[in-house]
Amino acid sequence: MACPVDELARLLGPNSTAAASFICDRFTAASDNFTATQYAVDNTYLLFSAYLVFAMQLGFAMLCAGSVRAKNTMNIMLTNVLDAAAGGLFYYMFGFAFAFGTPSNGFIGRHNFALGSFPSSNFDYSYFLYQWAFAIAAAGITSGSIAERTQFVAYLIYSSFLTGFVYPVVSHWFWSPDGWASAAKSSDLLFGSGVIDFAGSGVVHMVGGIAGLWGALIEGPRIGRFGGSGRSVALRGHSASLVVLGTFLLWFGWYGFNPGSFAKILAPYPDSDAYYGQWSAIGRTAVTTTLSGCTAALTTLFGKRVMSGHWNVTDVCNGLLGGLAAITASCSVVEPWAAVICGFVASLVLMGCNKLAEKLKYDDPLEAAQLHGGCGMWGVIFTALFASEKYVAEVYPSVANRPYGLFMGGGGRLLAAHLVQVVVIVGWVSATMGPLFYILHKLKLLRISAEDELAGMDLTRHGGFAYAYHDQDDPDQKGGFPLSRVEPAATTPQSV
Amino acid sequence: MACPVDELARLLGPNSTAAASFICDRFTAASDNFTATQYAVDNTYLLFSAYLVFAMQLGFAMLCAGSVRAKNTMNIMLTNVLDAAAGGLFYYMFGFAFAFGTPSNGFIGRHNFALGSFPSSNFDYSYFLYQWAFAIAAAGITSGSIAERTQFVAYLIYSSFLTGFVYPVVSHWFWSPDGWASAAKSSDLLFGSGVIDFAGSGVVHMVGGIAGLWGALIEGPRIGRFGGSGRSVALRGHSASLVVLGTFLLWFGWYGFNPGSFAKILAPYPDSDAYYGQWSAIGRTAVTTTLSGCTAALTTLFGKRVMSGHWNVTDVCNGLLGGLAAITASCSVVEPWAAVICGFVASLVLMGCNKLAEKLKYDDPLEAAQLHGGCGMWGVIFTALFASEKYVAEVYPSVANRPYGLFMGGGGRLLAAHLVQVVVIVGWVSATMGPLFYILHKLKLLRISAEDELAGMDLTRHGGFAYAYHDQDDPDQKGGFPLSRVEPAATTPQSV
Amino acid sequence: MACPVDELARLLGPNSTAAASFICDRFTAASDNFTATQYAVDNTYLLFSAYLVFAMQLGFAMLCAGSVRAKNTMNIMLTNVLDAAAGGLFYYMFGFAFAFGTPSNGFIGRHNFALGSFPSSNFDYSYFLYQWAFAIAAAGITSGSIAERTQFVAYLIYSSFLTGFVYPVVSHWFWSPDGWASAAKSSDLLFGSGVIDFAGSGVVHMVGGIAGLWGALIEGPRIGRFGGSGRSVALRGHSASLVVLGTFLLWFGWYGFNPGSFAKILAPYPDSDAYYGQWSAIGRTAVTTTLSGCTAALTTLFGKRVMSGHWNVTDVCNGLLGGLAAITASCSVVEPWAAVICGFVASLVLMGCNKLAEKLKYDDPLEAAQLHGGCGMWGVIFTALFASEKYVAEVYPSVANRPYGLFMGGGGRLLAAHLVQVVVIVGWVSATMGPLFYILHKLKLLRISAEDELAGMDLTRHGGFAYAYHDQDDPDQKGGFPLSRVEPAATTPQSV
Repeated sequence: MACPVDELARLLGPNSTAAASFICDRFTAASDNFTATQYAVDNTYLLFSAYLVFAMQLGFAMLCAGSVRAKNTMNIMLTNVLDAAAGGLFYYMFGFAFAFGTPSNGFIGRHNFALGSFPSSNFDYSYFLYQWAFAIAAAGITSGSIAERTQFVAYLIYSSFLTGFVYPVVSHWFWSPDGWASAAKSSDLLFGSGVIDFAGSGVVHMVGGIAGLWGALIEGPRIGRFGGSGRSVALRGHSASLVVLGTFLLWFGWYGFNPGSFAKILAPYPDSDAYYGQWSAIGRTAVTTTLSGCTAALTTLFGKRVMSGHWNVTDVCNGLLGGLAAITASCSVVEPWAAVICGFVASLVLMGCNKLAEKLKYDDPLEAAQLHGGCGMWGVIFTALFASEKYVAEVYPSVANRPYGLFMGGGGRLLAAHLVQVVVIVGWVSATMGPLFYILHKLKLLRISAEDELAGMDLTRHGGFAYAYHDQDDPDQKGGFPLSRVEPAATTPQSV
Repeated sequence: MACPVDELARLLGPNSTAAASFICDRFTAASDNFTATQYAVDNTYLLFSAYLVFAMQLGFAMLCAGSVRAKNTMNIMLTNVLDAAAGGLFYYMFGFAFAFGTPSNGFIGRHNFALGSFPSSNFDYSYFLYQWAFAIAAAGITSGSIAERTQFVAYLIYSSFLTGFVYPVVSHWFWSPDGWASAAKSSDLLFGSGVIDFAGSGVVHMVGGIAGLWGALIEGPRIGRFGGSGRSVALRGHSASLVVLGTFLLWFGWYGFNPGSFAKILAPYPDSDAYYGQWSAIGRTAVTTTLSGCTAALTTLFGKRVMSGHWNVTDVCNGLLGGLAAITASCSVVEPWAAVICGFVASLVLMGCNKLAEKLKYDDPLEAAQLHGGCGMWGVIFTALFASEKYVAEVYPSVANRPYGLFMGGGGRLLAAHLVQVVVIVGWVSATMGPLFYILHKLKLLRISAEDELAGMDLTRHGGFAYAYHDQDDPDQKGGFPLSRVEPAATTPQSV
Repeated sequence: MACPVDELARLLGPNSTAAASFICDRFTAASDNFTATQYAVDNTYLLFSAYLVFAMQLGFAMLCAGSVRAKNTMNIMLTNVLDAAAGGLFYYMFGFAFAFGTPSNGFIGRHNFALGSFPSSNFDYSYFLYQWAFAIAAAGITSGSIAERTQFVAYLIYSSFLTGFVYPVVSHWFWSPDGWASAAKSSDLLFGSGVIDFAGSGVVHMVGGIAGLWGALIEGPRIGRFGGSGRSVALRGHSASLVVLGTFLLWFGWYGFNPGSFAKILAPYPDSDAYYGQWSAIGRTAVTTTLSGCTAALTTLFGKRVMSGHWNVTDVCNGLLGGLAAITASCSVVEPWAAVICGFVASLVLMGCNKLAEKLKYDDPLEAAQLHGGCGMWGVIFTALFASEKYVAEVYPSVANRPYGLFMGGGGRLLAAHLVQVVVIVGWVSATMGPLFYILHKLKLLRISAEDELAGMDLTRHGGFAYAYHDQDDPDQKGGFPLSRVEPAATTPQSV
């Protein structure tokens, strides 16, 4: 809508500069209004998406709480609160700068520490908030793997390191326009393609899962998890209600995680019908996310029914989350029908990883390494197989004629880039978090004592048990059989 | 803002085609920008509304979990997870096409199976997502009525049938522009009016409630619900906290359900002040929804206090939900003061239905048939009595001079249409779901055995008890009988 | 974009009225479109913010439930449900009119009772809904202070009075453009500044906290809270999971509370880069909110570790909420680094207030007076110290060259205004709620009997215990002492 006055004046004929100026002033105002509208709408969209992603932290807290034994509930929830809190400070001070500080080299950013030069034409605060919510999600994943046996101080150390350094560097590689493997660069793309990890099956889920894998491997299984004869003993979580609550909250938040990764919604697509724009791609992303999760849940339901003989709600929840973690990389660039395939295989991957973990006597109370690491890895590969030519061109328009999914006829270059992604994420996280956990282990800062583990961390470290359904100070309960007198009279059959 | 170049050139005088073209190009760009803005804003609005409606599924899960006994918690939560998951697949494959596939006849749609021809100028993905969230709500209502005694396989069958066929057909009749009773048609409206069931007191709540009624009737009451002497025994739910959590989540999600049903927010009203547009109608809808729920909650509080002698939180929660279900049909077309009346009567309707159910020895653990069926039916009638002339004209502009509420001076034609709606919904759901439940009953696929019912489905079908507040591996508990009597048999090591 | 036809016709030359009219028609249409866009975007923003603030009511309910003993769970949750329900009706009928009815005097509004003259160019329904959600938050705070020992009828009385009168008057003073201490007035500002209490550290949190202080003081501590020797005995809440759930939900909802208080997002700033507008200020507000909460949580973690020797999750939750309550006044006008200071001090304030409360034998089950009153007061002072010149000018543009934070070089006038705010809020709430609680006390309507308190209100007033994890009808539990051996040993007083 640029309106050069002199050009219009020339067209209108002699002595028309004032008229041209009058008209162009109004076109400029209209153009400015549209610009302001874009900023307002896109920021509204991104802020509410960020709030949804933040709600995932609550989902993690509830899922983790329900999945551990009651005696460690406060411990695990405290780690989830601190992911958000410590993560907030570390990501503010360092993390965002490492991840998105620009201009930068391909490996790590080095500007915008503590929100310096904010906002700018590159970044507004909403973008920081959104990325912060992502960063704390990665740390939340890891805390699940090492639950029920880790010293709190170890938790504080690894969590700060992961949120402030390890994760930001990975997100720089794949998501910053400067990153060496970014698909949003306009030249020098890895294999002429770059990595399409739209919302982070690799960047978030694999990072969190593999960090957890090293932690859990170095600590070893919880006491009693593998019996004397090596028999696997499920140490069931203490509340299925909390597991379902957490799972649904994560699903809810995933609508901020995946569709929100577009960051902008007021972006028409050139050369398309007026009704079809980035808002359609965002809606499609919400639909693929939904379908993958649904399919994985159903597949797990029937798969587990066959294997274990009962309909298991916590397994279905994990399957659902595996389907969501898997679709995260490709959610914006695949067809809905492909999302069904993604979820179906994700469920098999999760069940396979769990079988393998049991065989290897690997103990992960939340199945976090299997779910986020395994299904996340499948999601990275799946993208390279099923990404659609049309959607890749629309969502990543920086270069034309990009490679796309192998099974869609797009050749193998995207797959090559994604295999590189798998290797470098596994390598980088192993090279940073592995030694960290090992050093903590050697310094005797990693695992709690056997006595503490048996008694439960809530009593020994966090000041008490998480629940008190019956009161100590009730005088009726002082002697004898503490719970038998909870009711005022035996004639009130409802209570207890 | 259409700008025909030749017309402007003629007005500007000779040799002005280039100038006219210059100017019109910019008006066209401004117009395109506004179109893109509308799509972006409306899709943002609809997507976040869909996420809120989805959150209701979590609300249902928590409400149901808290309202059943602890021994059936995992069972009921699993049905809620599967509503969403199976519903997602069935609604994707069939349901949406039956409901909104267009062009179609008045009875059932037959296009857009598996999101064929998506998006189009008619539908974007966000619309599918929103409708999916509605479809699973209907199935969620029904699962409450038949809780604590239904085989899981029966659940899978009726749920798929309801989400994939029964509900979509009803939503086609009343909400598709092609539906025979739709109020959005531009000609041949039922009684010259069509049915105004804005967000579905009939389409969603009555359908779910009446389906549940048939299921619960055919199964009969839970063991122990009506004592030997026929005395009614409340089988209290196991957690009031979960009930309150679920209720608030449903209330929260209702702000997506009712105001979200406008689908578009960037729609100015012609011939009105600039500040008054569809955004005002949407805000008013949120307010009427709130006031009806609040009034119903307070009425129930005092009503139950008089009847039972105590202040009952779970009853207040149900009353609140009854008020919300009742206002759902009329939320967009009534004044705030009328919403207070709606909620007041809804509370009385719910208390009356509950009295009646007790007399008839009808057992519905969630009061779902009473609440969604009874209050939903009241909501349909209420709309025909109190719909305001002005709001009906604004919200349903397809024809002029529509009938409106009987008590508002709008005549009886809207009431006639709504009585037809009540009859056909009761008839259709009874004719489809009644036989389905009966066949399942005859095939012995409907009700679990008495032994399973007494032991609880979680232990017998779902692999264990939902809660374990005290741990088996705690050495302090080794001696004695640590919970060993909670379980039906010592051979089920997972439980506790 | 105003386009006077005659002016353009004059510029275009003779015989150009038709052309000018043609062009101006289109500019007017473009301008109308932008106006409609502003209303739609701003209403979308405000409505979803209101929904988030409403979610805080659920957060309060869960936080309160988890923080009381199990025997009073239903009682406290019912008060939270009724805050929303009764608050909805009273705020609709009276509260909004007292707070924002305009034109009015500086002390109290007197128009718009029961949403008369709605909507108008001043107010749309979304604004009412947003303010309603704020009003019920204040009542929710107070209910925490007097938990576990207050008659239900007293609750209904004070809650209606607070929501319908006391709080609306305070919000009129500081937030209505007519209020005597408002910073949004264009003349006669208090100390040439007015009070900058952006989202209500004073208006909401201090009001709720001080009301609670009087209630708790007049009732006295719960039985057993201060032992025979005066020793303080923590009466631990019954579920840390509910505490964490509630805390996260409150944090989630705070993103509606603080950034939402802008009410409009589509507002470019004059004389600034195009990318910088009110959307940036809103994003910054979300970031300062986050950083203050995070810092307070971490400070509390380490502070409590030093003082009590363990890592305490519920204390960390309270610290977090204290940081959020403190930043609420200044969230829109301080730099992110200042928010870190705000949160750090808020944590110290809360720990100090708690120490003081213990010394004075003041018993507040939710620490509500300390948290909302104490940290809220700190937030009011903090604003007067750290408000930035630039942000104050942008967010409160009604007058130029306003005073700003003392430590930022803005002089002491803002501090003077804020000290006045502290005094008048303490005075007004004490003068209204103090006598109310005292009269209830004298009428024996305030505190429950000692027998009821020991037995728990759920059994004596609300029809039963909130939880039933084990079923009466389980035949294995019929004989013996149903659950009496669940506890590991009598020496672990916290558990069970």
